[in-house]
Amino acid sequence: MIPRYARPEMTAIWEPATRFRIWFEIEAHACDAMAELGVIPRENAEAVWKAKDVEFDVVRIDEIEAVTKHDVIAFLTHLAEHVGSEQARFVHQGMTSSDVLDTCLNVQLTRAADILLADLDRVLAALKRRAYEHKDTVRIGRSHGIHAEPTTMGLTFARFYAEMDRNRARLRAARAEIATGAISGAVGTFANIDPRVEDHVCKMLGLSPEPISTQVIPRDRHAMFFATLGVIASSIENIAIEVRHMQRTEVLEAEEFFSAGQKGSSAMPHKRNPVLTENLTGLARLVRMAVIPAMENVALWHERDISHSSVERGIAPDATVTLDFALNRLAGVIDKLVIYPENMLKNMNKFRGLVMSQRVLLALTQAGVSREDAYRLVQRNAMKVWEEGKDFREELLADPEVTAALSPAEIDEKFDLGYHTKHVETIFARVFGAPA
Amino acid sequence: MIPRYARPEMTAIWEPATRFRIWFEIEAHACDAMAELGVIPRENAEAVWKAKDVEFDVVRIDEIEAVTKHDVIAFLTHLAEHVGSEQARFVHQGMTSSDVLDTCLNVQLTRAADILLADLDRVLAALKRRAYEHKDTVRIGRSHGIHAEPTTMGLTFARFYAEMDRNRARLRAARAEIATGAISGAVGTFANIDPRVEDHVCKMLGLSPEPISTQVIPRDRHAMFFATLGVIASSIENIAIEVRHMQRTEVLEAEEFFSAGQKGSSAMPHKRNPVLTENLTGLARLVRMAVIPAMENVALWHERDISHSSVERGIAPDATVTLDFALNRLAGVIDKLVIYPENMLKNMNKFRGLVMSQRVLLALTQAGVSREDAYRLVQRNAMKVWEEGKDFREELLADPEVTAALSPAEIDEKFDLGYHTKHVETIFARVFGAPA
Amino acid sequence: MIPRYARPEMTAIWEPATRFRIWFEIEAHACDAMAELGVIPRENAEAVWKAKDVEFDVVRIDEIEAVTKHDVIAFLTHLAEHVGSEQARFVHQGMTSSDVLDTCLNVQLTRAADILLADLDRVLAALKRRAYEHKDTVRIGRSHGIHAEPTTMGLTFARFYAEMDRNRARLRAARAEIATGAISGAVGTFANIDPRVEDHVCKMLGLSPEPISTQVIPRDRHAMFFATLGVIASSIENIAIEVRHMQRTEVLEAEEFFSAGQKGSSAMPHKRNPVLTENLTGLARLVRMAVIPAMENVALWHERDISHSSVERGIAPDATVTLDFALNRLAGVIDKLVIYPENMLKNMNKFRGLVMSQRVLLALTQAGVSREDAYRLVQRNAMKVWEEGKDFREELLADPEVTAALSPAEIDEKFDLGYHTKHVETIFARVFGAPA
Amino acid sequence: MIPRYARPEMTAIWEPATRFRIWFEIEAHACDAMAELGVIPRENAEAVWKAKDVEFDVVRIDEIEAVTKHDVIAFLTHLAEHVGSEQARFVHQGMTSSDVLDTCLNVQLTRAADILLADLDRVLAALKRRAYEHKDTVRIGRSHGIHAEPTTMGLTFARFYAEMDRNRARLRAARAEIATGAISGAVGTFANIDPRVEDHVCKMLGLSPEPISTQVIPRDRHAMFFATLGVIASSIENIAIEVRHMQRTEVLEAEEFFSAGQKGSSAMPHKRNPVLTENLTGLARLVRMAVIPAMENVALWHERDISHSSVERGIAPDATVTLDFALNRLAGVIDKLVIYPENMLKNMNKFRGLVMSQRVLLALTQAGVSREDAYRLVQRNAMKVWEEGKDFREELLADPEVTAALSPAEIDEKFDLGYHTKHVETIFARVFGAPA
Repeated sequence: MIPRYARPEMTAIWEPATRFRIWFEIEAHACDAMAELGVIPRENAEAVWKAKDVEFDVVRIDEIEAVTKHDVIAFLTHLAEHVGSEQARFVHQGMTSSDVLDTCLNVQLTRAADILLADLDRVLAALKRRAYEHKDTVRIGRSHGIHAEPTTMGLTFARFYAEMDRNRARLRAARAEIATGAISGAVGTFANIDPRVEDHVCKMLGLSPEPISTQVIPRDRHAMFFATLGVIASSIENIAIEVRHMQRTEVLEAEEFFSAGQKGSSAMPHKRNPVLTENLTGLARLVRMAVIPAMENVALWHERDISHSSVERGIAPDATVTLDFALNRLAGVIDKLVIYPENMLKNMNKFRGLVMSQRVLLALTQAGVSREDAYRLVQRNAMKVWEEGKDFREELLADPEVTAALSPAEIDEKFDLGYHTKHVETIFARVFGAPA
Repeated sequence: MIPRYARPEMTAIWEPATRFRIWFEIEAHACDAMAELGVIPRENAEAVWKAKDVEFDVVRIDEIEAVTKHDVIAFLTHLAEHVGSEQARFVHQGMTSSDVLDTCLNVQLTRAADILLADLDRVLAALKRRAYEHKDTVRIGRSHGIHAEPTTMGLTFARFYAEMDRNRARLRAARAEIATGAISGAVGTFANIDPRVEDHVCKMLGLSPEPISTQVIPRDRHAMFFATLGVIASSIENIAIEVRHMQRTEVLEAEEFFSAGQKGSSAMPHKRNPVLTENLTGLARLVRMAVIPAMENVALWHERDISHSSVERGIAPDATVTLDFALNRLAGVIDKLVIYPENMLKNMNKFRGLVMSQRVLLALTQAGVSREDAYRLVQRNAMKVWEEGKDFREELLADPEVTAALSPAEIDEKFDLGYHTKHVETIFARVFGAPA
Repeated sequence: MIPRYARPEMTAIWEPATRFRIWFEIEAHACDAMAELGVIPRENAEAVWKAKDVEFDVVRIDEIEAVTKHDVIAFLTHLAEHVGSEQARFVHQGMTSSDVLDTCLNVQLTRAADILLADLDRVLAALKRRAYEHKDTVRIGRSHGIHAEPTTMGLTFARFYAEMDRNRARLRAARAEIATGAISGAVGTFANIDPRVEDHVCKMLGLSPEPISTQVIPRDRHAMFFATLGVIASSIENIAIEVRHMQRTEVLEAEEFFSAGQKGSSAMPHKRNPVLTENLTGLARLVRMAVIPAMENVALWHERDISHSSVERGIAPDATVTLDFALNRLAGVIDKLVIYPENMLKNMNKFRGLVMSQRVLLALTQAGVSREDAYRLVQRNAMKVWEEGKDFREELLADPEVTAALSPAEIDEKFDLGYHTKHVETIFARVFGAPA
Repeated sequence: MIPRYARPEMTAIWEPATRFRIWFEIEAHACDAMAELGVIPRENAEAVWKAKDVEFDVVRIDEIEAVTKHDVIAFLTHLAEHVGSEQARFVHQGMTSSDVLDTCLNVQLTRAADILLADLDRVLAALKRRAYEHKDTVRIGRSHGIHAEPTTMGLTFARFYAEMDRNRARLRAARAEIATGAISGAVGTFANIDPRVEDHVCKMLGLSPEPISTQVIPRDRHAMFFATLGVIASSIENIAIEVRHMQRTEVLEAEEFFSAGQKGSSAMPHKRNPVLTENLTGLARLVRMAVIPAMENVALWHERDISHSSVERGIAPDATVTLDFALNRLAGVIDKLVIYPENMLKNMNKFRGLVMSQRVLLALTQAGVSREDAYRLVQRNAMKVWEEGKDFREELLADPEVTAALSPAEIDEKFDLGYHTKHVETIFARVFGAPA
C-alpha cells in the first residue's frame, strides 16, 4: 500500500482495529448461536457483548502475539481481559482460527467491493455526463494511430461507459464470489460445532455459508475476485492511454485539468503533462500484479496450508486500495478533462479530406466504376493531396473521369460529416437506454 | 498448441478451414441483410450462398495473402473465384476486416466455451460419483501437511465438485462475455452499413450485437474470458496437487490408474508415478499464462491497434486447447483413481490416537478442568505417545487425573470416528442438493 | 508456436528429428566414455555409431511410444532396430531418461540462444547504421508525450543500440546458465554411472557438467533464461512503441517501409499502418508470458517431479521461436524505416519556439533576474505564443524587460539548436566506442 | 510492504528521510562539480554542504509538495530554507528532476542489493554447514514423490547451496545493472549541464554514469533487476517446498525448529506445522509478482513517461523488503532445521528393499540374463514384497532363477547403501571446492 495512492475509507478496512472488530463480531455472534442451541450458557454469550463498544488495544494484542505467536489466540486473550476470563471461557468453542480469519477476510473484501462499486458509479456518472456533452463533437477515428473515419468524442466516452458498466456487473459477481463465511472447524467437518452456528454468524454479517469448506474457504473464490480487479484495472489503463494520446503535443485534443498551483503551468503552456493518466497506467499494473499470485493460492495442500496467507496480507489491501484510488482519480480526470473540439477539427483536416478517400472509392464502385478503375482514380487524386498539399475534394471535382461517374453534389456529399454521425443516437440508446 | 496435449474436437475450431467457413457465413448473412434492406440486389446475396458447401482452399488463400498481405482480402478474392466476381461485387460492402475477424473470433471462442462446459460436466460427473462412493471412507484431514482431524474421502471429492461447479458458472458467464459480434465499420459508427445488418448476422450466429464497438470488439471481454480460464486451470492444479500428495510413497492413499502396457509397472510396484496429475500441474501454468497478456490487450490505441492480434493468435487456441485436454485428463484421473481406504486408516493411526488430543482437551475443559490443567494433562499423555510409542487412549484411561474428570466411556467416545462424520450428510446435501 | 511468426532455422531446433538426433549423440558419446572406462565393450560403443547418419523414423518412434508410454524407451527401442539389439544392449546403461532429456533440452536452448545472439547482432548493426545516419537529424525530445527539448534521431537509435547491447550481454549470460548437461542417474548420485561419462558427454556437446543435479538439472537456470528473454522482449516493445508513435498521423516523423504490393498503399496514402511494430508489441507479450511459468517450474518435489515438462514443451519452442521472429522483424523495421526529417522540424516548431522557454528562463536567472521575475517574463511572452499564435523569439526581442537583461544576440543564442546537440559526439563515443 | 514481513535495515532504505538524504548528496556533489568547472561560484557549492548534517523535515517537505505538486521542487525549497535562498540559487542548475529521482532510486536499489547479498551469504553459510553435517545422512531420493534411489541429506543441502550460489552471482550481475546514475538534463542531451557533472556525482555515489539516458535511466535495467529477484524467490520456494514435504506427518524427516513459547507445541506433538516454510512459499509469490510490471515498465513513450513511477513506488520497496525478510527467515529455518535421520531410514525401508529393484534388474542384465527375463524375475519377487509384505532381499536369495545368475554376496551387495554414496565426496568437491 503506497500512502500517496490510498484513500482513508478503503485503508480503514485493512487496519488492525477493523480486523479485531470483525473478529469480535464473529465470536460474539457465534456465542449467541451456541447459546440458542443450548451448547453454552446464555449468560456467557451475553457477557461477550460487554466488549461491544470497546476499542481493542492493538498494541496490547501485538504484545501477546509476540509470546503466543498466534494472532487469534492473542486476540482472544485480550478479549478475555475485557469480558473476564470466567465469562469468556466459551468464546471460540469448537472453532478453529481460520473460521475467524477467513470469514473476516471475506467481510473485509465485501466491504472493499462495496466501495469499489461506488467508485465505479462515480466513474460511470462522469463518463455519461461527458458522453452526452460531446455526443456530437466530431473528431477523427483512428486505427493503428492513423486517421480512419470521423467519429465523435461522445462515442469515445460512451464506449468507456459501456466497458465500465460491464466492469460493474463483473465486480458485483466477484463480490458474490467472496461473500461467504465458514465456521466449520479444523477440517471443515463441523465436528465440534453445529452448522447452525455458521448459519447464524453468516446471516448477521451479510454473508452466505460456504457450502463446503475445509479449514479454509476455498481460494478459487478469491482468485476470481482478484482476476476481476485485474480486468477493471486494464480498463482504467485503456481510458488512461486514450487521454494520454489526446494530450500529446501534436494531437492536443484534450488536456487533464491543470490546477493553478502546479508549477510551470504558464511559463511553459505547452508543457502540461498528462501525469494523472500516466500514473493510472502504472497503477493498473500494480492492481494487475495481484492476479497471478491469487491464482497460485488456489492449490493448497490437503485441507489447507498457510502459503496463501502472506500473499493475501499483501494483495488484499494493496489491490483494493490501489484500485479504489485509481477509480477515483479516473473519475476526476474524466470529470474535469478539458476538451478541444477545434483542435479535433484541425487534426481531422490535416490531410485535406484524404480520410474520405474510402467513401469516394465506395461511391465510384457503386456508380458502376470497376474496382480497379475506382482505385486508380482515387489514388491519383490522393497523391496530389499527399505530395503537393492539394485539397482532395477540389481535386476530385476537377477530375473529369471522376465527375463522369459522380456529380459535384454527390462528391460534396462524401465530405459531409453527418454521414458519419447519423447512427450516434442509435448507439447511445444501446449504451444508455432510451435516448436522454 | 502442443500436439500431445490437444484433442481434435477443440483443435478443429482453430484450423484455417473453420475460420474461413465462419468468415463465409458472416459475409453471406451480411449480404442477406443488405438485400433485405434493399442496399444490394437480392440475387447477389443469393449467389454468395453458392459457396455454402465449398471447401475453401487454404493453400490458395495463403498464396493470395502472400501478395496482398491481407488475410480477409485474400479470402474475399478466393470467394469471388467461387461465386463469380460480378456476383460477388457486393460482398463485404461497407464492412471492415475487423467486422469479420472479431465476430469470427467470438464465434470460435463460444464454440470453445461450449466444449469446455461439456468437459466440466464430465469432471463434475466423475467427482460426484466418486464423492458418493467414498462418502464414508474415513481419512485424516490435514492442515499444513500435518494430521489434524478425521474427514472423509467423499468430502474431498465433494469440495472439488463444489469448486468445479463454481467454475462451470464462471465459464457460462465468461461465454456470455465473448458471445457478441460487431458489423459496425471502420471506426464503429455504422457509417457505411446499417446497424440492422449487424443484428441479423449476430442473430444467425448465436451472438448478441456489441452495443458499442470501435473498429474492434472491446478486449475487456476477452480479458475476462481468459482470466476465467486461468481460474479453472488453478482449480485443476488444486485437485492435481491433492492426488500427487495422496500417491506419494509415504502416504499412498490413492494412485492414478496404471494401464498394463506402461513399462516398469510391476517390477517396481512402488514406482507408480502420478505423472498425469504432475502433467496437469504444468498444464495449469500453461493455461494461466494467457491471463496477463489478455489483460495487456485491453488498452488499444484510439479506435484500435493490432497489437492484440498476435497475442490472440497464440493464446486463443493454446489456452482453450490445453484447458480442454487438461479437463478431460482430469476427468479420467478422477474416474479411475484407485483409492486405498485401508492405507487411509493406517495413516490416521500413525500416532496412535494423538489426532484426538484436541477433542480430549476440549472435553476436559467442558468437564470443568481449567484450560491450563487440561493442557498439562493432555500434554503429559501425548508425550508418552510421541516419545515412547504408547497408545493415547490407553494412557488417558490410565491417568487418574484424567479419569477423575472423564469416565472411560467418555474417553472412549472421544475416539469415535462417527463424531467427525456426523455432518457429512448435511454437507453433501448442501453440495449436491437433497440427499441422494 | 504460431507458424506465421516462426522462422525455419529456429523451428528446426524443436522438431522431433532434431531431438532424436541429440538423444542419439548423448547416448553414443556416453557409450564411448563407458567403453573408455572399461565399463562396456568398445565394440558395442562403436556399433552404436552405425546409426550416425540414420534419419530416425519419427512416426515409428511415436508408434512405440504409444505402447510403452515412455519417449526415451521408445527411442532406444527404435535405435536398437538400427544398431541391432545385441549390440545396443549397453546403450543407456546406468542412465536415467532425464539424463538424456535434460541434457538434450539444454543443447536445444543453447542452439536457440546462438540464433538469438545472431539476431541481436542484426538488430545492433541496423541500429548503429541508422544512428550514424541520423546522428545530427534534430527532432524534439518529448517527456509525457509533450515537447520538451531538442534531441536527435541518432540519439534515439543510439539508446536503443545501448539497450540491445545490454540485452546481448544478458543473453550471453543466460546462455551460460543453461549450457550444462547431466548424466548422473536416477537421483543424481552417479550410483550406476561414473561421473567421467558426464564429463565426456558434456565436453562433446559443448556443455559444462552440472555440478550437482538430482534426477534433473535444476530449473532456476531455465527460469533465468526465460526471464532474460522476457527482458529482451520488453526492449523490443520499447522500440516498437517509439516507431508507432512516430508514425501516427499527427506526428509522422517516420513510417515503416511499405512494400509496393500491399493493398491500399496509395489510394489512402495517409493510411499506412505501423502493423509490424504493432505486431511486435503483441509478440513481446507472447514472449514475456513464459517468464512466470518458468519461475513456477523451479520448485520441484524432492529430486524431481515432472510438472515442469509440459510447461517447457510449450514455452521452450514458443518463446525462442517468437523472439527469433520478432528480433528479425525488428531488424528489418529499423533497417528500412523511412525517416522524415522535415516533419521533425515542423513538429518541433509547432509552438513557435515555446520549447525554448526553459532555456530563456535559465538565462534570465543567470543574468541576475530573480526566479520569480524571470518566470513572470517568460510566462507573459509564452502566453502570447500560446493564445495568439505569436513567435516566441520575436516576442522576447520586443519585450523591454527581457532585453534589459539579455541582448538580442543572447536571446537568439537560446534558439540555436547546436546548443542541444553539442554533446552528441560524446554520447556516441560512450555508446559505440571511439568516434567512427 | 507488510510490516510483519519487514526488517528495519531494509525498510530504512525506503524511508522518506533516506530519500531526501540521497537527493541532498546528489545536489551537493553536482554543485561541487559545477564549481570545479567554473559554472557556479565555489562558495555557493560550499554553502550547500551546510545542510550536510541536517535532518530534513519530512512533514515540512510534504506540506510544500501539497502546494507545488512536485516532490523535487518541494525538497529544493526546503533545502533553501536551510542553506539560504541566495546561497542555494545554483542548486539543481541545468538538471531535471529525474536526474535526482532516477539516480537516487539506483542508489537505493544498490544498497538493497548489498543487503540481499549479505542475506544470501547467511543462507549459503547455513546450507554449507548443514550440508557437511549431513553429508552421509542417507535418505531416499524421490522422483514424482515416489521412492527412487538412496541419496543423502547432505546432497540436498549441497544442491540448494549450489542454487543459491548461482543466485548470488545473478544478484551481483543484477546489482551492476542498476548501479548507474544520470545527470543528463531534460531529454538526456546534457544541453544545460556538463557531462563531467554526471561523472563526478556518480563517482561519489559509487555508480557508473549511464552511457546514454533520456530524461530517465532506461528501465530494461530495472526489469532485469526485478526478474533476478523473482528467480531468487523461486529458489526460496524450492527449498521451502522441500522442508514442507519433509515435515508432513507421514514423512517426518525434518521439522522446523519450534520455540518453547509457541502454543500447542506439546499437547499435540504431532501438530508442529511448517508455518515458516509455508510462509516462505507465499512470500516467494509476492516477490515474483514484481517481475511482469517491471517488464511492462520498459516501454516508455519517447524520452519518458511517468507510468513506471507508481509501479516502482510499489515494487521497489515491496520486493526488496519481502525478499530480505524471506532470505533471513530461510537462513534461520535451515540453521535450526531439526533433522530425523532415523525416520529417513525408516521411510527408506517402507517397502522392504523394493527401491533396490532397479539395481537388481541391472545386475541380472549384466550377468547375462535377457532384459525380458530379468524384468520377470524382479517382478515376481517385487510383487511378493508389495502384496504380501515380504522382504525383497530375502525373496531374491530364495529364488533359484535369481541365484543362478547372482551369488548371495552379489545380491547382498545390491543392498549396500555405500554404493549410492560413493560419489558424495566428488559432488561436494564440485559444489564447495576442494574437500573440506
